[in-house]
Amino acid sequence: MFMEDIIEHKRDGLALTEEEIHFFIQNYVNNKIPDYQASALLMAIYLKGMTSYETAILTKEMRDSGEVWDLSDIPGLKVDKHSTGGVGDKVSLVLGPMVASCGAKLAKMSGRGLGHTGGTLDKLESIPCFDIYETYEEFKEQVKNVGMAIIGQDENLDPADKKIYALRDVTATVSSIPLIASSIMSKKLASGSDCILLDVKYGSGAFMKTKEDAKKLGDLMEQIGEHLNKDVRYEITSMEEPLGYAVGNNLEIKEVIETLNNRGPKDLTLLCLNSGAIMLEQAKIFDNYQDGYNALLKNLENGKAFDKFVEFVKAQKGDISYIYDPSKFKVSKYLIPIFAAKNGIIKKIDALTIGKASMHLGGGRMVLTDTIDMSAGIVLNKKVGDSVKNNELLCTLHTDKDDVKEVIEEVKEAFIY
Amino acid sequence: MFMEDIIEHKRDGLALTEEEIHFFIQNYVNNKIPDYQASALLMAIYLKGMTSYETAILTKEMRDSGEVWDLSDIPGLKVDKHSTGGVGDKVSLVLGPMVASCGAKLAKMSGRGLGHTGGTLDKLESIPCFDIYETYEEFKEQVKNVGMAIIGQDENLDPADKKIYALRDVTATVSSIPLIASSIMSKKLASGSDCILLDVKYGSGAFMKTKEDAKKLGDLMEQIGEHLNKDVRYEITSMEEPLGYAVGNNLEIKEVIETLNNRGPKDLTLLCLNSGAIMLEQAKIFDNYQDGYNALLKNLENGKAFDKFVEFVKAQKGDISYIYDPSKFKVSKYLIPIFAAKNGIIKKIDALTIGKASMHLGGGRMVLTDTIDMSAGIVLNKKVGDSVKNNELLCTLHTDKDDVKEVIEEVKEAFIY
Repeated sequence: MFMEDIIEHKRDGLALTEEEIHFFIQNYVNNKIPDYQASALLMAIYLKGMTSYETAILTKEMRDSGEVWDLSDIPGLKVDKHSTGGVGDKVSLVLGPMVASCGAKLAKMSGRGLGHTGGTLDKLESIPCFDIYETYEEFKEQVKNVGMAIIGQDENLDPADKKIYALRDVTATVSSIPLIASSIMSKKLASGSDCILLDVKYGSGAFMKTKEDAKKLGDLMEQIGEHLNKDVRYEITSMEEPLGYAVGNNLEIKEVIETLNNRGPKDLTLLCLNSGAIMLEQAKIFDNYQDGYNALLKNLENGKAFDKFVEFVKAQKGDISYIYDPSKFKVSKYLIPIFAAKNGIIKKIDALTIGKASMHLGGGRMVLTDTIDMSAGIVLNKKVGDSVKNNELLCTLHTDKDDVKEVIEEVKEAFIY
Repeated sequence: MFMEDIIEHKRDGLALTEEEIHFFIQNYVNNKIPDYQASALLMAIYLKGMTSYETAILTKEMRDSGEVWDLSDIPGLKVDKHSTGGVGDKVSLVLGPMVASCGAKLAKMSGRGLGHTGGTLDKLESIPCFDIYETYEEFKEQVKNVGMAIIGQDENLDPADKKIYALRDVTATVSSIPLIASSIMSKKLASGSDCILLDVKYGSGAFMKTKEDAKKLGDLMEQIGEHLNKDVRYEITSMEEPLGYAVGNNLEIKEVIETLNNRGPKDLTLLCLNSGAIMLEQAKIFDNYQDGYNALLKNLENGKAFDKFVEFVKAQKGDISYIYDPSKFKVSKYLIPIFAAKNGIIKKIDALTIGKASMHLGGGRMVLTDTIDMSAGIVLNKKVGDSVKNNELLCTLHTDKDDVKEVIEEVKEAFIY
């Protein structure tokens, strides 16, 4: 078999065979296929597409390119949740303790933030001493005993995705739905959960700009699950405005704590209840959505979800005094209020602009080697649909930087009212 | 400007700007753009195409990526001729002396054979002592004094084509009409002629399999000429059967000598008369086709075309005693006759099969480092349209190899009658 022929087949719009996909992934991971052949194939896939079966095979081969975790000695069905990423998206940190408090086992590997989107690992590391570098054995023990664990990506898992993603990033082949689906799903499948719930975001602050594309991606990932015998479900949610009020690492952790105490933003709380009810059904803890929903709501009200979060933070060596007293978190040098310039109804808060502004304030990274200021970010005072009066507070910028004039102008323009 | 954006634009079907094409070629030649980005762009060009203006700009940028020869101090219009390659295609070696004998100046850079197609340089080197490595100054002197010169490719000309061609070869992006056109035309333009005649072949033994594709390629190269102010014309010729009777290096030189003595195959002679008449019109030696045609025919009859060939071979240090006495050429150890198995009319002689068979007999290369047996090849005894009787000679294989059973079977299947 020759790589040239595989490229030619995809170039001519044929579906690749299982053998061809296996040949490509195995040899690419082992550096026997050069990047220039891989990138030609990726562009052909971008332009000619892949069937759901092809994408499932690609996913399986990527999953099998490295270690695959086996969580079968943890009793019960293990659930995992993945969001395609957004601005202010702290869902995993609220949802995890909620479903774990109802008996689900959440085994989650997470990533870091880049560009305008934040990362769950960064948010967790804003809790002093929090350890995201557990071993595989520690991770499994924690899922078994606490009901949830969140750790950083294991370098031995899915090496194909790492190589392919780095190449896509510099060859204009990122925004291909089959390539996005196989990248997400291969990582999720390698980390060993039985059921996966996907939160596919669309809108200004999301990877998928339209609801239609989000649905295509969700459908394809669900089909991959069917081909590979995994219970994969998805929900589509808007990222036209940031999720909740807080954007920025420790600012979001404080909002997580509020939400787990049932005092959180409505949009965030409802999304977590809905996602959690689906996950509890997937994990067969409840046999219908409504019972799961009620149980989750109850645990927000009675404090069990919050207690589970404390237990989780403690298990990963985080300083839980911060969870009990969020005023201990570092506060930025400058808190800059942004006021409305007229009366109106908020029509839009552009999530992409807010995400980028938070990054520019120090709360995110442009490149993976940048360091993050854990207290930097933006806290909204208004959400879409709220009425606002002239000179009323729209949001507050948190930063240690001395000159953020440009960011202030950016943020003002994010609000349409 | 970023290469990622250029790839993205072509991926999305936009026409690249002059600045973008300049950026790509300059930085790729200077190794500032990696192969994996170039190959993604090439695949996007393959699948999304290029306008004739874009292709002309690409051609110009490739031409200007290295030295560009200036032949302006040779009086008169310099003509060049290029064939897209075929089996038994010795046209340049007949046509060159014909037009030079009528006063045209042919300045031609040629290539070597690869796969089933032969190369003009290899054929010339089957004449003992023939030198294809003249300097630029020697080449210009010879064009001025003799009226024709054929030399090997100068490494300093069109380095962009060398890099891009090598990459296309391993990324399934060879058969793209804009990429083929810019590759051919940039080399031709870099070697400095004023007028170019292109022989675009189609059929089994050619690069373009259909007449339609050949016409597309011809039209595009003509348009490149218009955009860049060069007199570029093309003719489309069939390569469904080999050209003439001889396939293989010194076998073809012997046929060239026969043809220049006006005893050659009809198809080869007519093609050279037609091509030559166009070239003489391009070079403004005759102001109409018919006068040029008549002059060429006259010089075949009166020996002036043959004399010009001798003068050309002598100028490039070839042993002209072989030209006067072709029986001096090395003859293969085995001459294997292939006989017809029934009566019939020859419907087809598959050029690709004959070309590959000649290579397998030792007359060609699979890779550029293979050495060639100058006497190996195939001499046909029949052409398409000829009637054949059972046991009559179809062709003769020439080889030094001891075991060519498989080749014999291949060749038998090439004849449909």
